[in-house]
Amino acid sequence: MHAFRSQTCAELNKSHVGQNVRLSGWVHRVRDHGGLLFIDLRDHYGMTQVMADPDSPVFAEIEKVRSEWCIRIDGEVKARDESLINSKIPTGEIEVFIRDIEVLGAAKELPLMVFGDQEYPEETRLRYRYLDLRREAMQRNMTLRSDVVASMRRRMWDKQFREYQTPIITASSPEGARDFLVPSRQHPGKFYALPQAPQQFKQLIMVSGFDKYFQIAPCFRDEDPRADRSPTDFYQLDLEMSFVEQQDIFDTIQPVLTGVFEEFGGGRKVDQEWPQISYRDAALWYGSDKPDLRNPIKMQVVSEHFAGSGFAIFAKLLEQEGTEVRAIPAPKGGSRKFCDRMNVFAQKEGLPGMGYIFWREKTADAVAQELGIPVKEAQAKLKSGEVKGGMEAAGPLAKNIGPERTEAIRQQLGLNVGDAAFFLGGKPKAFETVAGKARNVIGEELGLTDKTRFAFAWIVDFPIYEQDEETGKIDFEHNPFSMPQGGMEALQGNPLDVLGYQYDLACNGFELVSGAIRNHRPEIMFKAFEIAGYGKEEVEKRFGGMVNAFQYGAPPHGGCAAGIDRIVMLLADEANIREVIMFPMNQRAEDLMMDAPSDPTSDQLMDLGLRVIPQEQ
Amino acid sequence: MHAFRSQTCAELNKSHVGQNVRLSGWVHRVRDHGGLLFIDLRDHYGMTQVMADPDSPVFAEIEKVRSEWCIRIDGEVKARDESLINSKIPTGEIEVFIRDIEVLGAAKELPLMVFGDQEYPEETRLRYRYLDLRREAMQRNMTLRSDVVASMRRRMWDKQFREYQTPIITASSPEGARDFLVPSRQHPGKFYALPQAPQQFKQLIMVSGFDKYFQIAPCFRDEDPRADRSPTDFYQLDLEMSFVEQQDIFDTIQPVLTGVFEEFGGGRKVDQEWPQISYRDAALWYGSDKPDLRNPIKMQVVSEHFAGSGFAIFAKLLEQEGTEVRAIPAPKGGSRKFCDRMNVFAQKEGLPGMGYIFWREKTADAVAQELGIPVKEAQAKLKSGEVKGGMEAAGPLAKNIGPERTEAIRQQLGLNVGDAAFFLGGKPKAFETVAGKARNVIGEELGLTDKTRFAFAWIVDFPIYEQDEETGKIDFEHNPFSMPQGGMEALQGNPLDVLGYQYDLACNGFELVSGAIRNHRPEIMFKAFEIAGYGKEEVEKRFGGMVNAFQYGAPPHGGCAAGIDRIVMLLADEANIREVIMFPMNQRAEDLMMDAPSDPTSDQLMDLGLRVIPQEQ
Repeated sequence: MHAFRSQTCAELNKSHVGQNVRLSGWVHRVRDHGGLLFIDLRDHYGMTQVMADPDSPVFAEIEKVRSEWCIRIDGEVKARDESLINSKIPTGEIEVFIRDIEVLGAAKELPLMVFGDQEYPEETRLRYRYLDLRREAMQRNMTLRSDVVASMRRRMWDKQFREYQTPIITASSPEGARDFLVPSRQHPGKFYALPQAPQQFKQLIMVSGFDKYFQIAPCFRDEDPRADRSPTDFYQLDLEMSFVEQQDIFDTIQPVLTGVFEEFGGGRKVDQEWPQISYRDAALWYGSDKPDLRNPIKMQVVSEHFAGSGFAIFAKLLEQEGTEVRAIPAPKGGSRKFCDRMNVFAQKEGLPGMGYIFWREKTADAVAQELGIPVKEAQAKLKSGEVKGGMEAAGPLAKNIGPERTEAIRQQLGLNVGDAAFFLGGKPKAFETVAGKARNVIGEELGLTDKTRFAFAWIVDFPIYEQDEETGKIDFEHNPFSMPQGGMEALQGNPLDVLGYQYDLACNGFELVSGAIRNHRPEIMFKAFEIAGYGKEEVEKRFGGMVNAFQYGAPPHGGCAAGIDRIVMLLADEANIREVIMFPMNQRAEDLMMDAPSDPTSDQLMDLGLRVIPQEQ
Repeated sequence: MHAFRSQTCAELNKSHVGQNVRLSGWVHRVRDHGGLLFIDLRDHYGMTQVMADPDSPVFAEIEKVRSEWCIRIDGEVKARDESLINSKIPTGEIEVFIRDIEVLGAAKELPLMVFGDQEYPEETRLRYRYLDLRREAMQRNMTLRSDVVASMRRRMWDKQFREYQTPIITASSPEGARDFLVPSRQHPGKFYALPQAPQQFKQLIMVSGFDKYFQIAPCFRDEDPRADRSPTDFYQLDLEMSFVEQQDIFDTIQPVLTGVFEEFGGGRKVDQEWPQISYRDAALWYGSDKPDLRNPIKMQVVSEHFAGSGFAIFAKLLEQEGTEVRAIPAPKGGSRKFCDRMNVFAQKEGLPGMGYIFWREKTADAVAQELGIPVKEAQAKLKSGEVKGGMEAAGPLAKNIGPERTEAIRQQLGLNVGDAAFFLGGKPKAFETVAGKARNVIGEELGLTDKTRFAFAWIVDFPIYEQDEETGKIDFEHNPFSMPQGGMEALQGNPLDVLGYQYDLACNGFELVSGAIRNHRPEIMFKAFEIAGYGKEEVEKRFGGMVNAFQYGAPPHGGCAAGIDRIVMLLADEANIREVIMFPMNQRAEDLMMDAPSDPTSDQLMDLGLRVIPQEQ
């Protein structure tokens, strides 16, 4: 017999009754039922009930074991009484009567229980991660992550991509975030950097003629903490292809991701239609470049209805250049209570408030007020038909702009009795983000957002440049390596009008993928950088490897990168990235279990030619 | 039609004749045949001949293209004349008559030709890696590497292993080599380290209950340059299992590796029997702990035949304690010329020389010398049978020890006419390495080493400790985390007698795999460290993460790691690791293409709280 187990803790069933078996695992729970000891023995695969009575030759030893001790037992498989069968687990028909026991690893008093659902502070969980990871939810999350990555790989291979590893100790990469540096011992005073992404390398792989590259790539950014972001390293499904246009990239990655979401989404619906929405439309309709399309609300421009209207705030506002009034329709939101709550929300977000209109059945109260008669009389008039009922628009805005404009708005937004609309005005940049948040809250509160679904959209046509409001300086809006739509010609006009072949994929309100068709023509690249104020020399200094390569027969190419941690978070329905990483840093970028970062030895510093500057306390 | 290609450059054949197609790729070669222009158009997949005559509307543009320009052409597929068919390539039956051409990426004058077999200095190849990688051999090597890694993954998944990613920015790992450090910005003056291997993390994964882990893991060691070693990062197939013994690890990895070698070995024979050889036997028989078993030579101890013999050097030597004389049998090596050459080899390796005996048919010369008669007379006596012929042992050693001892040696080694044996004496540690090298050279020179084969052996029973000859200090021979055979009890005796459950896999003279059953019992671990002079506090400080974890129910576990770069080198039959890495550093750990390492900015140093110490020139 094997030294540690004849079966795992998930394998035994009625067919094994009478057999002598050997199991190894952890003591999940011990129960004492009037002298009978029951142990739930747990391993990675499952749980088996093992037991002993005082007649057992090893009863005294069994009495000693405690939760999370690792033990080996030998024993005989017995059928459980019909009444004691646990149909929830595969081994629920049997139990094992212990004849021998060996303690493989005892456990001190536990700082964190594996059994049960008790919550622990994150610091405790990370310091004792090896215990935390034994909990069922963590086993499930890590297994899920592993399976998701394997599935991605298989799908990429099926599409004739090959995985190539790019260097991890390399030069600084120009992704815009802060690099982690690695001091060189052989060249004291000089530093390598960890790659923020394999961006330049994957483009060089294309210039090297490899055609289709992918990599489950570790990426490193020295970023400040955030719940949905690891402060050190994270993983991307990174891909690049030669001789392609934007649509080719979409057609490649879409089936990979829908496949993964269908495989691991736990039955949630996975949208097959992925609309392509321009960056500008996304901002207008959803107030976000990563809209949650599970929420059906689509904002609209309603400026015309307020221009010159009796609502002076908006009417005046609209006289300024670059201003707009936008409406957030809120189907089923037609109650004053809800509208007031949303108004408070807007105030919390720093706006003066959010105007609204809602539509309702005309009430006796309203008629009474309108005609200056008692409510009872109004009720009678409504009943007799003397006064017409039907829809009425409520809210101060409606009163200010009058019934015609109100009705025109209602018609434009396609709203009806029981619905509401909220209004925001000003320069769109100033209120778009809050509008997007309001849209989310409205969708959530009104139950419009369908939680059983993954909804995707490509956000396309990102502008290449943006202008600093204060300095007026033109800079890259995003990635400087994207091909401008219209090529060199487009770069001759107004830079702020130049769109790029650059795209993001939004899913349920998160950015899952980002990519671009690259600018592979050195002359267009130099021009693009010149517009952002970078001279040729600076470009050659900062991106020399790639710029040189492009002068030796570069193919058109493009690609994207999908955030693996984020995808697993969505699939596992977790809000914190540390729930889907085996050994994450804490929010201060510390590993409490392994004690990192730590003080270097003076020999190490000497080797590297470095001195630590004493910090002020 | 697609913007860049209707087919790849490997797809067109007779069935496409008459079709209008679009191809994109690189100009591999241009030939001008009396006004007709032929271009070999190359992409990742293959080559297609495209051509134009002066009547072509775009002839003038085609005339401009040069080697390694990236172009797109449209044209009509035509069958080649029977006499011009190139059966060596899949597209050899056709050519494409160009109707339209677009230059996608022009190329400057090339520092390195892709076409042809010209050799370039390594610095040129690495600086222009993107051109170097376009060469056929490099495309093949990189593709091979990618396919090997994918195959390993598939095989591990088929064995119910899951891949889990371990941190790359972490604490120093105690593998014995030098760490790469990463200064922390959030904790100025403190440093992370890149992992030399995921050793501690994979053990923690076992303590976390995951049962079977693997990872294609990047490993980082700040090592000095060597041809078969990357100066920065390298990859391992890393695995770990719980509830296993040594043989379980062997049974797991053997089918994975034989499978990979069979799949990618290009028809070379892959041994299915993997002998298990103790570390001591390997040193004795092969003078190496990574023996090349394609070479059938097995050394033997022949001390008894020299003790008290007439060969004073060995006879005296053997009077000292701890000395031995060992023989390297050399079948078919029985010529003075060969024996002298090997003697010279030994001198070059720093030994005084290597004694030898070889066996031959008795010659007339020898008889003449022996009897002091002319050669002609000796020939006659041999012919007439007056003097007996047969075997004779030649070489000074044979004369010194006399015929009986010489014959006893011959019989022990199983040698015969035409064979030789070499002898080395002293303390084994002093000559074992040279003996191993001599064995390799003998095997090579005599054609005994079978180059069409992959021969594997497990080297087992490594000693846990070694003793420094000068200081007498006991230290770990290898990895401090291995379980000593015999457990706690074994640690009570002579430390130098303690063997570990620790093993290497040798293949064709290289170490491919290294692993161990781990010491998962804190009390045995503290004792093991104590013997090597590490107090409890120091152990807790250096390996705190793991030592703590072992106190909360650690399972027995073990594993191994296989060197991927090395495996690909063997399969690709390359001697330099840079031939199987996409973007390697040079031997001074520099990336010439990306310019790494480089000077940090003063802001970066300030952020990290570091100052560079000026170096003396």
